[in-house]
Amino acid sequence: MTKKQNTRISTSGGFSCPLPILDYDTIQLAHGAGGRLMSELIDKIFIPCFSNEILDKMEDQAKLDLPESGKLVFTTDSFVVHPLKFPGGDIGDLAVNGTVNDLAVSGAVPKYLSVGFIIEEGFPISELHEIAQSMRRAADKAGVKIVTGDTKVVGRGHCDKVYINTAGIGFLPDNINISVSNIKVGNKIIVSGTLADHGMAVMVKREGLSFNSDIESDSAALNHLVQMMLKVCPDISAMRDPTRGGLAATLNEFATQSKMGIKLDHSKIPVRDDVKAACEVLGIDPLNVANEGKLIAAVPADKAEQLLRVMRSHPLGKDAAIIGEAVDKHHGLVALKTLLGVE
Amino acid sequence: MTKKQNTRISTSGGFSCPLPILDYDTIQLAHGAGGRLMSELIDKIFIPCFSNEILDKMEDQAKLDLPESGKLVFTTDSFVVHPLKFPGGDIGDLAVNGTVNDLAVSGAVPKYLSVGFIIEEGFPISELHEIAQSMRRAADKAGVKIVTGDTKVVGRGHCDKVYINTAGIGFLPDNINISVSNIKVGNKIIVSGTLADHGMAVMVKREGLSFNSDIESDSAALNHLVQMMLKVCPDISAMRDPTRGGLAATLNEFATQSKMGIKLDHSKIPVRDDVKAACEVLGIDPLNVANEGKLIAAVPADKAEQLLRVMRSHPLGKDAAIIGEAVDKHHGLVALKTLLGVE
Repeated sequence: MTKKQNTRISTSGGFSCPLPILDYDTIQLAHGAGGRLMSELIDKIFIPCFSNEILDKMEDQAKLDLPESGKLVFTTDSFVVHPLKFPGGDIGDLAVNGTVNDLAVSGAVPKYLSVGFIIEEGFPISELHEIAQSMRRAADKAGVKIVTGDTKVVGRGHCDKVYINTAGIGFLPDNINISVSNIKVGNKIIVSGTLADHGMAVMVKREGLSFNSDIESDSAALNHLVQMMLKVCPDISAMRDPTRGGLAATLNEFATQSKMGIKLDHSKIPVRDDVKAACEVLGIDPLNVANEGKLIAAVPADKAEQLLRVMRSHPLGKDAAIIGEAVDKHHGLVALKTLLGVE
Repeated sequence: MTKKQNTRISTSGGFSCPLPILDYDTIQLAHGAGGRLMSELIDKIFIPCFSNEILDKMEDQAKLDLPESGKLVFTTDSFVVHPLKFPGGDIGDLAVNGTVNDLAVSGAVPKYLSVGFIIEEGFPISELHEIAQSMRRAADKAGVKIVTGDTKVVGRGHCDKVYINTAGIGFLPDNINISVSNIKVGNKIIVSGTLADHGMAVMVKREGLSFNSDIESDSAALNHLVQMMLKVCPDISAMRDPTRGGLAATLNEFATQSKMGIKLDHSKIPVRDDVKAACEVLGIDPLNVANEGKLIAAVPADKAEQLLRVMRSHPLGKDAAIIGEAVDKHHGLVALKTLLGVE
């Protein structure tokens, strides 16, 4: 598994920098105390990994140019994943992609991230350096900059190695208005690809299960895919990334907040066979499992097929599918066609 | 001490709302899992406490209007204080004031905050509710809105009760350019009040020390004080809030980043007598201790006295003092006059 993951990272290429030599090999409480060791950590690990013209000014806050028009979009997410590394990703790219995606599904162009580390005393500097490089690679792919940050260190046993918070700012054009409240009867429900890959990759790794499978996290930034979709159809009604709680939680939010019913065709929902098998063994419904590189959209019926073609032309949308529609019954509920009942 | 603090909060007034009844009295892992319990936590605790027209839309990201001109300012900070409550404040107001102050010292008007909670399984809902109310009171005082958030729950022993990250956005007028790189020889160094109050209040409480004292955290939002200062003197050179590492760390940053020397008059540095006594007992230098409602500014010499008068007219600046100046020797270092040497 480790070998495979290493190969994947090296073939994906991108930013890397040599591990610098610091006074300590592991995180000390003093690395969070505001003195010399903290400066060393910032100067040798974070600045070289995240470097850009805004961050490099080393102020306690980033100064950013305004867009000419439109709106700001602002979001935050904390990442507490265990294990820190898993097939297909690590906490670093997750922390970037998660916040980028929360911005992207609003239709905004993600621009800037903040990062807040909470690190456990004793955590290896080399692992922190790997995480920081992974964040930079993910930021480069998404086209965002990490412009401000904060580091706290907590004593042993007061954190599970490292937690990362990212907040993000995106710029939203005036003509885009994506909101769950816009869902209309007849809207088609599109999913951008196979479900439950991330959650099952983490679970298989965490539990040390030996499925003979290639299940990998789908951790990826969706902003370029979303921008392609908006070119074809600027009036997408609603869009979300189904992370915690999976497709089920996201569609429940669609249904309750829009007061529509959502009718799904279970046979159309894409799930990889090995993911399905792992879910069955563990007694988990893949529709409840987290994704980190997928989106669910409610779109005008007359644009659905065209959107699907465009999505399938993008690597992150190649398995996109229309899985259901918004209906004027089952108000506030999600109905699964094959069960002929209400979930 | 508790009694005193309660009195303080009730006399300071402001937002409060009754503790709602939830399915559980303590935080469960499911409160972070994206399902029904998480919705309950958000709907009954966070939305009522933080409520505003942006947050109430319940999207995964906040949409914000742009200012007409100027720049955006963006910052983040995580709060991992122990104990969660201390004389003069708690982790909630700290999490708001800390990020507000990082924005304020850039000269920006703080506008919007994100909040990310990492909560330990078993944490009492009633305490979380108190923290959320405290955040709202602090946000109201500072004039900012909490517009987006995230909640994660970690297992017992994977966090010290609750950690809070806040990120903040402020709007900076075009005519303001405060930066450590602007410090000039002859600039006077002003501190807005007594030092080390926050750090010693937390330490006395944490260690269970029974000093017969009224040491209280100075946790407060400085943005209104800063705006008064900018009216008198828009060309303040540099400004920071001396949190972790205290005055010493902040002035070291002033000296190293500006490549000036900073000469201090030790006798002018304001420290309360009881704080000084507590520091002496614990063998701590008050100049290294954290503050959460103080600022240090480097200002043009010809405006220093006028600024001091204006600052002293504001409750948060009543003990303001000129404590030193930027000099063309000791480059990159801070020198203390009374020691006749280099710190």
